[in-house]
Amino acid sequence: MIYLDNAATTYPKPDIVVKALEEGIIKYSFNAGRGQYKEAKATYNMIKETRDKLGSLLNTSSDKVIFTSSATEALNNIIYGLINEGDEVFVSPFEHNAVVRTLYNIKAKITLIPFDKKTFILDENKYQDLLLLKRPKAIIISQVSNVTGFMLPYHKIFSLSHNLGCINVLDAAQSLGEYEVVKDSVDLVVFAGHKSLYATFGVAGFYNLTNVNLRNIKVGGTGSDSLNLSMPNTMPSKYEAGSLNSLAIYTLNKSLDFVLNNNIKEHKGKLTNYLIKRLKEIPNVIIYLPSDYISCGIVSFNLKPYKAFDIGQILGDEFNICVRTGYHCAPFIKDFLDLDEYEGTIRISLGYFNKLEEIDVLIDALKGMI
Amino acid sequence: MIYLDNAATTYPKPDIVVKALEEGIIKYSFNAGRGQYKEAKATYNMIKETRDKLGSLLNTSSDKVIFTSSATEALNNIIYGLINEGDEVFVSPFEHNAVVRTLYNIKAKITLIPFDKKTFILDENKYQDLLLLKRPKAIIISQVSNVTGFMLPYHKIFSLSHNLGCINVLDAAQSLGEYEVVKDSVDLVVFAGHKSLYATFGVAGFYNLTNVNLRNIKVGGTGSDSLNLSMPNTMPSKYEAGSLNSLAIYTLNKSLDFVLNNNIKEHKGKLTNYLIKRLKEIPNVIIYLPSDYISCGIVSFNLKPYKAFDIGQILGDEFNICVRTGYHCAPFIKDFLDLDEYEGTIRISLGYFNKLEEIDVLIDALKGMI
Repeated sequence: MIYLDNAATTYPKPDIVVKALEEGIIKYSFNAGRGQYKEAKATYNMIKETRDKLGSLLNTSSDKVIFTSSATEALNNIIYGLINEGDEVFVSPFEHNAVVRTLYNIKAKITLIPFDKKTFILDENKYQDLLLLKRPKAIIISQVSNVTGFMLPYHKIFSLSHNLGCINVLDAAQSLGEYEVVKDSVDLVVFAGHKSLYATFGVAGFYNLTNVNLRNIKVGGTGSDSLNLSMPNTMPSKYEAGSLNSLAIYTLNKSLDFVLNNNIKEHKGKLTNYLIKRLKEIPNVIIYLPSDYISCGIVSFNLKPYKAFDIGQILGDEFNICVRTGYHCAPFIKDFLDLDEYEGTIRISLGYFNKLEEIDVLIDALKGMI
Repeated sequence: MIYLDNAATTYPKPDIVVKALEEGIIKYSFNAGRGQYKEAKATYNMIKETRDKLGSLLNTSSDKVIFTSSATEALNNIIYGLINEGDEVFVSPFEHNAVVRTLYNIKAKITLIPFDKKTFILDENKYQDLLLLKRPKAIIISQVSNVTGFMLPYHKIFSLSHNLGCINVLDAAQSLGEYEVVKDSVDLVVFAGHKSLYATFGVAGFYNLTNVNLRNIKVGGTGSDSLNLSMPNTMPSKYEAGSLNSLAIYTLNKSLDFVLNNNIKEHKGKLTNYLIKRLKEIPNVIIYLPSDYISCGIVSFNLKPYKAFDIGQILGDEFNICVRTGYHCAPFIKDFLDLDEYEGTIRISLGYFNKLEEIDVLIDALKGMI
């Protein structure tokens, strides 16, 4: 198997994560903070340590770190906690259905931030005009597009909206741990443990950097103050109802060490540059690259005249190469990238464990199709 | 360590679950149903097989089984999906904050189903009067109380409300796998993988037995129909946004075999009877037992004149015995069991791996305190 679907979930997981499962199922499979015995306390302390590590990634305190079971749940909690029917929200054309469907479900007004369709360059003037005209309640954008690997100019986007009192939400599901987050003007940052952080499924969350007052969405027991029918008002408990998934959190505790001790960005950068160079050798390839592309490991392309799906099927069936095709849960990219003809893109997403030779196998397979 | 907190989470996990983690991190750590490669399909098939097993537990089809990350999330999805501000909802005095705080957050009207405080017997006449008077939209009750081990007469309660068009929700977090669910008149059943089903954290869910039309709460990508801004309308996808936690689901797949192949109920029954017999040897013990108690493994008590917390602290610190004290996230039990003086109860909750001798150690420890 050649696994090139790391934007869906990174695979394989580092050895340290496999070991954390074996250790965690014995040492940390307790209900943290809900018992007076030392194993429950040790579990609580391990979770606190994980929060500390996440906090230090963004140079913030651990009480700003809220755990959820998935980035989808994190985005749901933020959006339901903040947005009401009819509220104006800006998103980029690259956003995921965890954002778009949720806003649509609430009947928020969605405005697309204007980017040039060829260069992906932000139309700053038009954006500023839209800001002043519509005065959005929130802006929700990805740091790295899961479709194109485009690194959005979130700092520029957010610094302009910040002065208008807009809440700025950065979806860093594809990037936390690899790319620094410039915190100025950012209110909330979403992360996914099982993607760029190399942990298992079941651990994700968000940073509430500026203590945005989100309505309580997920409600339930917190192991404290049981007689109070409201959720506690302290962070992070306020947003963490139910038993925390201490086993998954422990894998993140360990995978964070892996992420910080390996230059994943550099390795993926080399692989990405090589991938693009080699893809360009193939006639009839269309690569969806912004003009200022940073080689972050995600590349979308098509091969004329084939449908994306058909290429994915052949790569899977005949070559055991795992890619993803279609619209990648990002509904607005169809029009933005003009994908009608191909019914999506073929997406290659690289991880730390990929090798140059795997890209050669992919390229040979693609060349065999033309 | 003597672990007597199995109602919080069962511990240890069976060997088959530990092996499932080791196997699952390699074989099933893929994004199910979102890739065309065989590993993604195998992950999808494993999840489908787990749904089938859960379906057959309740003699229903797998599309009625919806996975969530926790029982709290399952109850949240049901309550937010069904209840509006001002709606009348009946609950028992034993319900958990995953139910009570959620209803309170929505500003639903909460009515307690009348039970006798000494015998725990349902006041049927008063209940019927309340039903006719208030015509609740939903009734949400546990099969087994996490505080007292009381098995609620849910069948009687639900059969009376069913004819009035009430939606009947059974919280089986403490019981699924051990106690049969009589499905007549039940609409929705909630389960927790990490409790009576002996899986890890991160997998839970609910059965939507009668296809109750719940509003979509958790919204996001489903790996299908990306261009549609609404969630798909098919069960179970409609309620399953984001990547499923295939690793945790795989532990449930295997732990279900463990649960079905071992007579957990019988073993726990013996232990529970022995525990109660021995607790009664201790002067000044108050045991909170219903008149028709079924020995399901959960027993709450107090030891006059001590606060519950103090007993828990001594058991943990001096004897390495893990129990839970307080109100157990069930806010109405304070008044129902008249717990002011003790600030909660001491709860012993037994699991398949407990032994008679461990109960002896507990009893000796308690006797030493008087």
